Amino acid sequence: MTHEIPPPTEDQLADVSSSSTVLCRPDNEAELTDQKVHSHGWVRTETTEQGKETFSIHHVVNDAMVEASESHLSVTIDDRCLKIPLQGKGTKYKINLTLEKVTDDEEIPTVQRSRFSSHVPIKSILSRPDGGAGLAGQKVRIFGWVRTGRLQGKGSFAFLEVNDGSCAAYLQVMVDASLSEDLSKLIAKGTCVVVDGCLKLPPQGTKQKIELRVGEVVDVGRVDQVTYPFPKNKPSLEHLRKYPHLRARTNSIASVARIRNALAFATHSFFQSQSFLYVQTPIITTSDCEGAGEMFQVTTLISAAEKLERDLVQNPPPTEADVEAARVVVKERGEAVAQLKACKASEEEIASSLDELTNAKLSLARSEERSRLKPGLPRKDGEVDYSQDFFGRQAFLSVSGQLQLESYACALGSVYTFGPTFRAENSHTSRHLAEFWMVEPELALADLEEDMDCAEAYVRYMCTWLLDNCYDDLEVMANNVDDGCIERLKLVASTPFVRITYTDAIELLKEAMAQRHKFENQVKWGIDLASEHERYLTEVVFQKPVIVYNYPKGIKAFYMRVNDDGKTVAAMDVLVPKVGELIGGSQREERYDVLMNRLEEIGLPVEPYEWYLDLRRHGTVKHSGFGLGFERMVLFATGMDNIRDVIPFPRYPGRADL
Amino acid sequence: MTHEIPPPTEDQLADVSSSSTVLCRPDNEAELTDQKVHSHGWVRTETTEQGKETFSIHHVVNDAMVEASESHLSVTIDDRCLKIPLQGKGTKYKINLTLEKVTDDEEIPTVQRSRFSSHVPIKSILSRPDGGAGLAGQKVRIFGWVRTGRLQGKGSFAFLEVNDGSCAAYLQVMVDASLSEDLSKLIAKGTCVVVDGCLKLPPQGTKQKIELRVGEVVDVGRVDQVTYPFPKNKPSLEHLRKYPHLRARTNSIASVARIRNALAFATHSFFQSQSFLYVQTPIITTSDCEGAGEMFQVTTLISAAEKLERDLVQNPPPTEADVEAARVVVKERGEAVAQLKACKASEEEIASSLDELTNAKLSLARSEERSRLKPGLPRKDGEVDYSQDFFGRQAFLSVSGQLQLESYACALGSVYTFGPTFRAENSHTSRHLAEFWMVEPELALADLEEDMDCAEAYVRYMCTWLLDNCYDDLEVMANNVDDGCIERLKLVASTPFVRITYTDAIELLKEAMAQRHKFENQVKWGIDLASEHERYLTEVVFQKPVIVYNYPKGIKAFYMRVNDDGKTVAAMDVLVPKVGELIGGSQREERYDVLMNRLEEIGLPVEPYEWYLDLRRHGTVKHSGFGLGFERMVLFATGMDNIRDVIPFPRYPGRADL
Repeated sequence: MTHEIPPPTEDQLADVSSSSTVLCRPDNEAELTDQKVHSHGWVRTETTEQGKETFSIHHVVNDAMVEASESHLSVTIDDRCLKIPLQGKGTKYKINLTLEKVTDDEEIPTVQRSRFSSHVPIKSILSRPDGGAGLAGQKVRIFGWVRTGRLQGKGSFAFLEVNDGSCAAYLQVMVDASLSEDLSKLIAKGTCVVVDGCLKLPPQGTKQKIELRVGEVVDVGRVDQVTYPFPKNKPSLEHLRKYPHLRARTNSIASVARIRNALAFATHSFFQSQSFLYVQTPIITTSDCEGAGEMFQVTTLISAAEKLERDLVQNPPPTEADVEAARVVVKERGEAVAQLKACKASEEEIASSLDELTNAKLSLARSEERSRLKPGLPRKDGEVDYSQDFFGRQAFLSVSGQLQLESYACALGSVYTFGPTFRAENSHTSRHLAEFWMVEPELALADLEEDMDCAEAYVRYMCTWLLDNCYDDLEVMANNVDDGCIERLKLVASTPFVRITYTDAIELLKEAMAQRHKFENQVKWGIDLASEHERYLTEVVFQKPVIVYNYPKGIKAFYMRVNDDGKTVAAMDVLVPKVGELIGGSQREERYDVLMNRLEEIGLPVEPYEWYLDLRRHGTVKHSGFGLGFERMVLFATGMDNIRDVIPFPRYPGRADL
Repeated sequence: MTHEIPPPTEDQLADVSSSSTVLCRPDNEAELTDQKVHSHGWVRTETTEQGKETFSIHHVVNDAMVEASESHLSVTIDDRCLKIPLQGKGTKYKINLTLEKVTDDEEIPTVQRSRFSSHVPIKSILSRPDGGAGLAGQKVRIFGWVRTGRLQGKGSFAFLEVNDGSCAAYLQVMVDASLSEDLSKLIAKGTCVVVDGCLKLPPQGTKQKIELRVGEVVDVGRVDQVTYPFPKNKPSLEHLRKYPHLRARTNSIASVARIRNALAFATHSFFQSQSFLYVQTPIITTSDCEGAGEMFQVTTLISAAEKLERDLVQNPPPTEADVEAARVVVKERGEAVAQLKACKASEEEIASSLDELTNAKLSLARSEERSRLKPGLPRKDGEVDYSQDFFGRQAFLSVSGQLQLESYACALGSVYTFGPTFRAENSHTSRHLAEFWMVEPELALADLEEDMDCAEAYVRYMCTWLLDNCYDDLEVMANNVDDGCIERLKLVASTPFVRITYTDAIELLKEAMAQRHKFENQVKWGIDLASEHERYLTEVVFQKPVIVYNYPKGIKAFYMRVNDDGKTVAAMDVLVPKVGELIGGSQREERYDVLMNRLEEIGLPVEPYEWYLDLRRHGTVKHSGFGLGFERMVLFATGMDNIRDVIPFPRYPGRADL
């Protein structure tokens, strides 16, 4: 147990400009064993002579601490820590402290509390240039999950490495056994702790710059160690994928999440700084961007059919005999009315009889309607009857917001969208997802060259942003996953992209083959470049990002602008090392006649594109755009190999957890 | 036609500190009729005496212009314009110009070219504090769509009001007939023009601060006036809704789009500034946030069934006789093999016979498989067989990212999501969409009060942001749609929100009824507040935003934290004038046992929530969050009445255009 020594009096503190002792008793002699002493100061200098300790401490600003455990005495002020082996219980130590007044222009460090919670994010402690040392003595509440914990001093205290997700680093937290009912429960990996304590300098020679000495354990979220799926130190990424709701508690996935966040905000910052407007294009769509990708259908027909089936089981539809019986009733009621009218019955009687006839007719109509009900999807003319679907027609999940976005570019100038897109393709590769995010800008009045300028500026902006804002997370990735990822970002941030035509790219690939480089896919003018070709160009030939432009018309979409040569279109792909194609874009065909010809040439129906043609009929304008696969960018930045690990909740054939 | 007068020589320009003439010929006498003169200067003072014009012009900085049309001479420098009626062709005018040197500390205005296009956004001209006047004389390329155009001077020139979407205002563009093949085609509403020209000061007394005198018409995107759907001045919002691809070319919808963009970026800026991480929760989900909202199903089963049906029509499945025939073949081949073996035929013969048997077996298997094919959805045990669907199970569009987001809050601290959400409800109101956007933050270690603090700070931040960044668009809304919208934003930006418990809110509503206020829905403790109640509280009782908190347990979702009274949960709704409920949030139940009890109490199955319970089993932590309906916020900010007008491509029952 520790005991408080009374803090210095006001008089003693007033005397701090002279040499006096504030960390210990004013009598300059302290019985320190098992004693905890608080004072305030901001250490600037320290001289340690063997066997004789002298401190120079600045005026009262922050907490500093002298503590003794069973094995040693430590004096901690600012980033200096002195550790003296205890000579045995009751030994006396003499400590001289000299106080100097802090000059007014010294920066006084303070902890930054979270604005909407009582805790101090660990990032605001550890991401300081001094690693947090300057905050020594400050009292903070922190929370986080224990990554590793260990009992020390025969169970008298515990060290917890705690991470709260605000940064990659852990804060070392020291908890005395007296503060917890059962210290061994705290040290389990995955435990959440909320603790109040005082930041202190750790013993010299340890890698930490600062640690937290806990004063009170405020709250504990225990771990069920039997069922916790990550009990070991390094679960594999494959294993983690089974637990999308828990895997962000691991280092690599957490760093990926922070890098992904940074890339998303960098994206908005870049386009907003260039006055692009963010337009949220629709997710549910009745257009198909290219008539190409497999699409997911969005429907309420199946649930309606299932509901109907359950209903028909519970309330079987009327048989033909039931309907016939209802018809007979109508006929009888009709005759009854006619009879009453014929014999000039009272108005009341006729009215009453008419009511009965009306009811019988309603009943027949209901009966006939229900007798027509059939299980399964509603059908008409041998096809599924989509007029009964929610939107009155077939609807799908968007594969790209581009076409709709163009309509906004042709009204508001440069715009961009950043949203989820979908492909119902049965791809089981490490590069494909059924649900992924795309960034798609559309630049009014821009031609292909300006489009390439924008794509290059955007990618380089993101790389610079990460290097400026996420260096610690990049280091995690470099250490755990891909040691080249930081160099790759620096390369892209600092190097102008190479720009070559498709035709020149084919020539380069042919030259490579002449020099005995082997490709699995053939190389000739007119082919779509395969991933191996793209990576060869960017990784081997140029060893930097490459933009290939002016592709053959035949392998590109109908909306790309036909060049004057009639053979190529103003399309471009940005290729980067590690992932190959990162961006695909083009100048759009703004000429009505040419666009119509292209639709015919390719054999696409005109009707679904009438609205798109409208943009060319009415006030058409030159424009260009591109799409960046956001997960590709995260793969590039993090060095991860599998796209399922760079999106929080991956969707692919057979899997859509949560 | 106009003729250039030679610009002043270097020597003349060197002499600008003395009194000399630069706008006109150096001889101080100019024959101005039909002549166009360029010079450079920055006007500070001007004195005009009747019949005698003296200008004071600063040193060479910008273009200024003296021009003559058939009817008048105008001299335009900076924001001053002098217009002199022409006395007849060939009249001579004498203009004295005095040049003074600009001091070095004068700001020299320059136009801001778009970074990725050759044009100057109109916003960068008109949004200057001087309305663009300071840019007079600058040469610019602008583009945009003609909102109104008119021929003047018997068709000798045209005025076009041009908007490029960068701001609400129009730039007035003057085009001489000589510059266009057919001026009447330029003036049609919806025409896109790309023009080079010189900014000049318009005649005094006009509302414009600056206009563009066109030097060259670079490009024109004509309008097909027969089919253009907005030929009139003010199409109704209902009419516009039929043309989602064109309606952003109208004032109100364009302003809404810019306000929406600003709100989206303000959202990211707010949460990023508070170190919240942006987490993209899944769109396709197999969880249901509350077991409440109707969901859209995402499937590939129908398209697979349709494909199968087409296939079965083209290649009818084998009949039972076909299958039987195939069985006979297998049997025969089997016997043949047995026979060959029995008579010890050569290995070759046996191998060949075995091959034939294998082929026959394969053919039978294929035949049997195809004979089992049935049109329609795949079924198993009387139900639709979702194991054959893309994800191997039933999948839906997300109604909220909250539950998945909680898993990231319980790993990374405070996080937020901003994405599309979906409801398959058959609502035809002006407040509901099938696809809408939600902002959902989740605050680690925050209780309900801190949750309310965050919600209030966020809403007020957005209002301040709009007032700071979108005032011109807000004025458009105030003029065209709702004259109270700016005052409402100011109110919310500047007023602390009232906070009352649900119980107190019910008391207030009862008091209102006692004072003869009539509500359509009954008021008693336990009801869910109706929209009329919410709006009464915020619009009548408090006339400012109100947060109602601690709702009865019975009307709220299972995940909300049960208060100590056992009757209420720590839920809150933010109510604002005009739209009522803007935000709904709660502290989440972090206690495993209490959460299990709630699931049982409500009768929800536990199995789908096992992963959610995991967050409480392993390292649970107090946390809170809320959801803001983004379109509600846009409605609030713009004063629009129909939610279909504040999202680019609205989806609702029966409609999903594009």
